Amino acid sequence: MKLKIFPLAIAASFLMSLNATAEQVPSFSDEDLRVAAELRDQALETTMDYDIVESLTTEVGPRMAGTPGDAAAVKWGVAKLEELGFDKVWTEPVTFPTWKRGVETAEVVAPYPQPLVITALGFSIATPEEGLSAEIIQFDDLAALESAPANAAEGKIVFIRNRMERARDGSGYGPAVAARGQGASAAAKKGAVGILIRSIGTDTDRMAHTGVMRYEDGVKKIPAAALSAPDADLLENMTRRGNPVTVKMNIGAQNGEEYTSHNVIGEITGSEKPEEYVIIGAHLDSWDLGTGALDDGAGIGITTAAAKLILGLPERPKRSIRVIMFANEEQGLVGGKAYAEAHKDDIQNIITAAESDFGAGKIWRIDSKVKPEALSAVKQMAKVMEPLGISYGNNLAGGGPDLIPLRGKGISVFSLRQDGTDYFDYHHTPNDTLDKVNPESLNQNTAAYVIFAYLSAQMEGDFGTGFNQK
Amino acid sequence: MKLKIFPLAIAASFLMSLNATAEQVPSFSDEDLRVAAELRDQALETTMDYDIVESLTTEVGPRMAGTPGDAAAVKWGVAKLEELGFDKVWTEPVTFPTWKRGVETAEVVAPYPQPLVITALGFSIATPEEGLSAEIIQFDDLAALESAPANAAEGKIVFIRNRMERARDGSGYGPAVAARGQGASAAAKKGAVGILIRSIGTDTDRMAHTGVMRYEDGVKKIPAAALSAPDADLLENMTRRGNPVTVKMNIGAQNGEEYTSHNVIGEITGSEKPEEYVIIGAHLDSWDLGTGALDDGAGIGITTAAAKLILGLPERPKRSIRVIMFANEEQGLVGGKAYAEAHKDDIQNIITAAESDFGAGKIWRIDSKVKPEALSAVKQMAKVMEPLGISYGNNLAGGGPDLIPLRGKGISVFSLRQDGTDYFDYHHTPNDTLDKVNPESLNQNTAAYVIFAYLSAQMEGDFGTGFNQK
Repeated sequence: MKLKIFPLAIAASFLMSLNATAEQVPSFSDEDLRVAAELRDQALETTMDYDIVESLTTEVGPRMAGTPGDAAAVKWGVAKLEELGFDKVWTEPVTFPTWKRGVETAEVVAPYPQPLVITALGFSIATPEEGLSAEIIQFDDLAALESAPANAAEGKIVFIRNRMERARDGSGYGPAVAARGQGASAAAKKGAVGILIRSIGTDTDRMAHTGVMRYEDGVKKIPAAALSAPDADLLENMTRRGNPVTVKMNIGAQNGEEYTSHNVIGEITGSEKPEEYVIIGAHLDSWDLGTGALDDGAGIGITTAAAKLILGLPERPKRSIRVIMFANEEQGLVGGKAYAEAHKDDIQNIITAAESDFGAGKIWRIDSKVKPEALSAVKQMAKVMEPLGISYGNNLAGGGPDLIPLRGKGISVFSLRQDGTDYFDYHHTPNDTLDKVNPESLNQNTAAYVIFAYLSAQMEGDFGTGFNQK
Repeated sequence: MKLKIFPLAIAASFLMSLNATAEQVPSFSDEDLRVAAELRDQALETTMDYDIVESLTTEVGPRMAGTPGDAAAVKWGVAKLEELGFDKVWTEPVTFPTWKRGVETAEVVAPYPQPLVITALGFSIATPEEGLSAEIIQFDDLAALESAPANAAEGKIVFIRNRMERARDGSGYGPAVAARGQGASAAAKKGAVGILIRSIGTDTDRMAHTGVMRYEDGVKKIPAAALSAPDADLLENMTRRGNPVTVKMNIGAQNGEEYTSHNVIGEITGSEKPEEYVIIGAHLDSWDLGTGALDDGAGIGITTAAAKLILGLPERPKRSIRVIMFANEEQGLVGGKAYAEAHKDDIQNIITAAESDFGAGKIWRIDSKVKPEALSAVKQMAKVMEPLGISYGNNLAGGGPDLIPLRGKGISVFSLRQDGTDYFDYHHTPNDTLDKVNPESLNQNTAAYVIFAYLSAQMEGDFGTGFNQK
């Protein structure tokens, strides 16, 4: 009633402030929550997510960055998104150096000759063609190697025996993987001619786990490979006997030409604010040893099937939803960096983002990175996920590896945290195959992603930006 | 009272009959049962069994018949038995044809090119050096292949997809393994140029299971290999799409020279009836892919450690005990056949026998093959095993693969039946390594074997012979 006595400017200012307040408390309508619950229940019944993983692993299989499998995967991704009826499907170029695996064998030469199962680490140089034979010197972990006296490993092959610990959240990976990433240069600094690490994994299968390593600038490059867990045990057992153990390793890896792959993007175009969009994504590349069913075929299946369920609604959601199949995550988050760079000028259009890249285990927790005012909406969202066994965690979400570059620019992200208890049994090994994907767990993931994507696209207000996370 | 009126001859005959009756009810003294229980309890605390498996797998590793590992294993066996203080240690020659594994790769050529993980079956011939490419034709099992029309597989590579079922007693092996043993000749009869079978195993690891196959006389020999379970799944998934699937396989296997290996025998010489003896044994050879920890390092560790505990007693047992490490079980029970042939003239000296060759799972049942009069003694023996969770089964024991030739000559045998639920996850694969051996389960096995060996050596009376089993 008082309103009519206000001058127009004051009234306008008041309305803006009301509007600002409204935007400060983002929320979902009852109808949106109802639809989200419906989509969730549909997701629990779908076979689409599994069918997509089956299609990718069967029709493409291994798709390491820069290989013919990479090109086949991009072609597959475009065709799949078009076949599923996305409103727009396009690719964006991603350029990177390549690396090729060659022969990779090793054996104990003395005192107890027998073969070892190894795999070269990504970007390792080759040994001489006739192989590299040297005595091994064992270290408990990277820190022990780094604190060894200068020349401690002179002329030897360093063997780092550290074991990764199993954990639901995969928290054993970080401490263990340093040996893979930095071990070669650390060993070279102590005079080593090669390095073998115990595989960064939690299994006891006689399969070695690959993954990238990096050479430090200015340090001599030496060949680097991972031993399977049983072979690392074997070297420990031989070493414990006290006599010198001589190992021969042959690595035929080489760097290749620069290659241009593509991020593959499918968009559901929003009905009200088409320029604003939610990202759900996964990476399309894999390592070469398995068929990349868990890493990251599962993520491709989950996010694509979630979007397809939304495409099945009678109306498009208010905002757009982009499924991004990132190129070359494995060798340096290259697709994620390319996307962040290509879209740096309209980054404010990204309402929020989540990547699925931790296998096919069930989601047990949802974490957010949103402005405080949006937390009540996040909890509304989490409530719809509750029947899936998912509870709200905290506001410290990371969002996923390919979102690191975008996250660095301050966008809101969510982490739908999967049970990774078994993930590192298979990670980066030949054992990453379709049979490891549990269709029921996959459905649960798809259900969570469809709730996340749909509600984020429908939300009144926004999650905020400018978080400036690293 | 009436006795004194009998003529001497009648009295003698009566006494003989009494004596015969006594022998018809074999039994153990209370002291023997007490010692057996003590040995059992010592076995549960020993590390010797595990240490022996560790020594064999570390210091020798793979020891396929006819390879340098075979020779190293024989040397190791003699040294180990001598080091442990057996009264006599000797070897007996075992001669056989050999087979060598070479390159073994396969790939789908069309419609979805990707590599496959295979391993050649023992005695497979090689493909042409440039490989063998052909369309695959899928069969549900060997029976389906055998009942297919003539020329059904003309020019094709047969793919048999049958799956082995998991069971505690390993009963899924027999029905499934026919495809491995007889598949190649069955396929060749239908015009096939090669055969790929789903590995005979219960795991889902991307490792193929090797094992012997045989060519039928007069049938064309074609190369034969096993696919890992995930790769068999992959071929099924490709085949289901309805288009021809072309596979290329390269097998570089070849037959080698005749080779003479040795059974390695360690004897504890009996104090009263040294010529009579109990056999406990296992096979010393392994396949080449793993380190033969389960197959059959575990059996070597169990039986050798059991005997060593008996060597630790203040007195030698009444009868002798022989630990036999059989040569070349894997490629045709050759060591078992050689032993039976070499000892055919004094076979009556074998009081009974048991072989451990089913991994390191706990024993859950003891079966016997003895004369009916000895069953009460067997049940006394089983009673001492009861605290180990072992109960008596039946009188239809098989005794173990290397005892088949001896069993055919009618000797008494026992089967100490192990839990084989997981055994075929690792059987004949690279995954047969030391980490799969559970020291506690191994102890339980050693405890059962020491009871069996000691009581059989001490028993009043015998288990009988002449069972004429096949």
